[in-house]
Amino acid sequence: MTSSPGCSRTRPLRLQQVQRWDIETDVVVIGFGAAGACAAIEAARAGAKVTLFEVAAGSGGTSALSGGEIYFGGNGGTPIQRTAGFSDDTEDLFKYLMLAGGPNADEAKVRLYADNSLRHFDWLVGQGVQYKNSFIPQRIVEPTTDDCLIWSGSEEAWPFVEQARPCPRGHTPQFMGMGGGRYLMDVLTQRVHDAGVDVRCNARALALIADEYNAVHGVVVRIDGSERCVRARRGVVLCAGGFVMNREMVKRHAPHLLRSQHPIGAVDDGSGILLGQSVGGATINMSEGFVTLPWYPPESLIKGIFVNEQGQRFINEDCYHGRVSQHILQQRGNRIFLLVDGASYGEPEFGKFANIEIGGTGETWEEVEKELDLPEGTLTATVALYNRYAAQGRDPLFRKAAKWLSPLVQPPFVALDCRIDHCFYASFTLGGLDTLPTGEVLNADREPIAGLYAAGRTACGLPRWGAGYSSGMSLGDATFFGRQAGSSVAARSSG
Amino acid sequence: MTSSPGCSRTRPLRLQQVQRWDIETDVVVIGFGAAGACAAIEAARAGAKVTLFEVAAGSGGTSALSGGEIYFGGNGGTPIQRTAGFSDDTEDLFKYLMLAGGPNADEAKVRLYADNSLRHFDWLVGQGVQYKNSFIPQRIVEPTTDDCLIWSGSEEAWPFVEQARPCPRGHTPQFMGMGGGRYLMDVLTQRVHDAGVDVRCNARALALIADEYNAVHGVVVRIDGSERCVRARRGVVLCAGGFVMNREMVKRHAPHLLRSQHPIGAVDDGSGILLGQSVGGATINMSEGFVTLPWYPPESLIKGIFVNEQGQRFINEDCYHGRVSQHILQQRGNRIFLLVDGASYGEPEFGKFANIEIGGTGETWEEVEKELDLPEGTLTATVALYNRYAAQGRDPLFRKAAKWLSPLVQPPFVALDCRIDHCFYASFTLGGLDTLPTGEVLNADREPIAGLYAAGRTACGLPRWGAGYSSGMSLGDATFFGRQAGSSVAARSSG
Repeated sequence: MTSSPGCSRTRPLRLQQVQRWDIETDVVVIGFGAAGACAAIEAARAGAKVTLFEVAAGSGGTSALSGGEIYFGGNGGTPIQRTAGFSDDTEDLFKYLMLAGGPNADEAKVRLYADNSLRHFDWLVGQGVQYKNSFIPQRIVEPTTDDCLIWSGSEEAWPFVEQARPCPRGHTPQFMGMGGGRYLMDVLTQRVHDAGVDVRCNARALALIADEYNAVHGVVVRIDGSERCVRARRGVVLCAGGFVMNREMVKRHAPHLLRSQHPIGAVDDGSGILLGQSVGGATINMSEGFVTLPWYPPESLIKGIFVNEQGQRFINEDCYHGRVSQHILQQRGNRIFLLVDGASYGEPEFGKFANIEIGGTGETWEEVEKELDLPEGTLTATVALYNRYAAQGRDPLFRKAAKWLSPLVQPPFVALDCRIDHCFYASFTLGGLDTLPTGEVLNADREPIAGLYAAGRTACGLPRWGAGYSSGMSLGDATFFGRQAGSSVAARSSG
Repeated sequence: MTSSPGCSRTRPLRLQQVQRWDIETDVVVIGFGAAGACAAIEAARAGAKVTLFEVAAGSGGTSALSGGEIYFGGNGGTPIQRTAGFSDDTEDLFKYLMLAGGPNADEAKVRLYADNSLRHFDWLVGQGVQYKNSFIPQRIVEPTTDDCLIWSGSEEAWPFVEQARPCPRGHTPQFMGMGGGRYLMDVLTQRVHDAGVDVRCNARALALIADEYNAVHGVVVRIDGSERCVRARRGVVLCAGGFVMNREMVKRHAPHLLRSQHPIGAVDDGSGILLGQSVGGATINMSEGFVTLPWYPPESLIKGIFVNEQGQRFINEDCYHGRVSQHILQQRGNRIFLLVDGASYGEPEFGKFANIEIGGTGETWEEVEKELDLPEGTLTATVALYNRYAAQGRDPLFRKAAKWLSPLVQPPFVALDCRIDHCFYASFTLGGLDTLPTGEVLNADREPIAGLYAAGRTACGLPRWGAGYSSGMSLGDATFFGRQAGSSVAARSSG
């Protein structure tokens, strides 16, 4: 390795060590998921020569593993929201995203996204992404049909509903069945090629090339077993995903996520984040992650109540499944049950896939308590209290909305077993490089690092709080801020 | 600022930019708290020329604000433990510290500390730190007398007690009243001077000086309003505290700590951590912090039960006050009550100071529930369940030890108001630079950064999990690993 002595994803190759440029381009994009695709498209259309490196054999990344759903709204609503009878106000979208972002929400990013979400929808449609003009009012995880609009977050649930007028905002492409993420990526991939981007797959970014002041001038890439020094005259955009598959890194930063044995990622080995850190990029929110068990549909299960190992309730069950699951992970102990009665029970749609089984049944709640071997008087007291208020249409403890409240009084009674170490709790990370809305990577004093940009899960964007996550936020963030980064880097004068 | 163009705590001055060395030394130590003092002593005694820079007017740092308590044990026990009748096994200390460190405990550091804790005690005694050979068996926060040994953690509480044989390990110096940290620092300060360390107070470290490969060669310091380039031939040791006083940094990394309105720190502005990051140092556990409300003594209060805004219990109350407080912060809502009866009530010793007031009273728990305006049937059901099992000497839900269990049945009944936004919840950060036991600062691939060391709260050491923190862990870590860093840097050949 004569061209890059001692460099690695955590040690940049210094500019003066570069012996020759094997490839010269204006913009380097690393990673061919949704963020990288959108960054490449915008940079190329702005006139930059763009080279995209992807470690896998083709496009997709973690985006292609998703349902393809994007969180759109505001500005009166998308055509699909309006047809479904919703006029979504920009301020409601803004407030919802601020709350969803948690205590460290990025107001500048949320503002830009909320103001431009509708234009971004139009842009994606312009790329060829098709959406059916249809709405599924029932609470589901993602459409198994080719339908579009769903309630994909906690919009109607406390405390969100108190701060922002609820509106369904999850938009899934017109693709039959689940897996719309692959469809979305196929469309974007075609646009990347149309835009003239030089795409190099099976190419691993090994190190950044930076001068002694950490300004980024390129990247060392391994292609066909040999290392090439790639000059990026305007800048490098890191779109290499998060770090959920790097279990050592998860242990160091977000050890609670190790309880989920189902990390969701294509590569997501943290290399994008590490590359950014190697030139002084600051990471934020590294302890946050998304965790979920797809415990509904059917939505009748939302009428049930979750209890922990102490037989206590802990959440309004009408929240988004990810928010509920985040709270599940905070409970003491591993055992978690969803209690339903004869009126509310329905076999969980993903029950088999998610390993949700029946943990106990009974003609009385006392029998269920006993069968679950919970201390006498725990589960039964919880159900009694819940039923007492549910009969009045109230949930003074956790504020589940009235439409989901009905006393659990019709036998047989069922406890669904949602044990953390047994069921399918999927997870991915939400921490990453601190960036401006332009995609510029910041150091720990929030000063931009010349020539370095990031988007998607390599950066810390709109989704940054497990308890606030809503389906469609990641792809919304990746596509929108991928575009911002592509436009910004293309506009930069050559380094 | 001709000597250091564009450098800052987040941007190193490059070696080739140094026009002249204003000061030349072997070892630079930044920060004059316990870690810095111990690093300086060991480095100087090993023959290095040591210069210590402290931003304040004198020694002390956050260490001097503490009770001076250190967590010692193992190896059969300190003389004080043995006199009190405890023979502490090294493996029990090891297991306890591993559990206390949480899911990302540093086994190498814990092992070294457990094996050498007794030798470290002897070393401190050798420096002149005096300990009275006395034990206070009651559960307290810190001695108000000049006594030494106390139960300063969760040793006797579940789950710790199941994994490590309990032993009291908090050792407070022989100093009348609280504030033994100042005494400890006075002793160490004298030894620093005795060892011939060149101490410069009112001196702020502005930036590290590093070559293009981020090897550290010195530091830019502001003294008397002018900037000096200081050459450190063997290395720089960062002992500049944590970041709890840098509220923007807390927001970015540990926003839950913002709920504590009482950050504990002397400087603790994060500059040590930022300096380390500026040359590629990796941070870990940045979201973790210590939070506590000193709600006992008297220890009879431990017979009470904590309930949240939903009237639910959530913790075995016989844990260390910091562990209880950590769980308080995880509850939904701001209202927290400690319920005691006529038999267990005692005025909280720090009640006035900590703003713990009586929130409600009654001749029955129903009256208390009503006075607190909690939903009918919540608090009362919790007390009934607790009492039912307490009468049998059991706590099947949270496993409080039998000695603290007695039914809360003797009126008057009292709810102490422990609201998070009203009471004195003290806090400091536990995240910092990733280091080896030698103090060497690591990059994100855990490779040492040449010439850079850290100890104390600038590093991430033994205490790294709010729910596992025990009094004395921070000073134990700071003094012990400060010494390691001092020995290591002194042994390094000149850069």
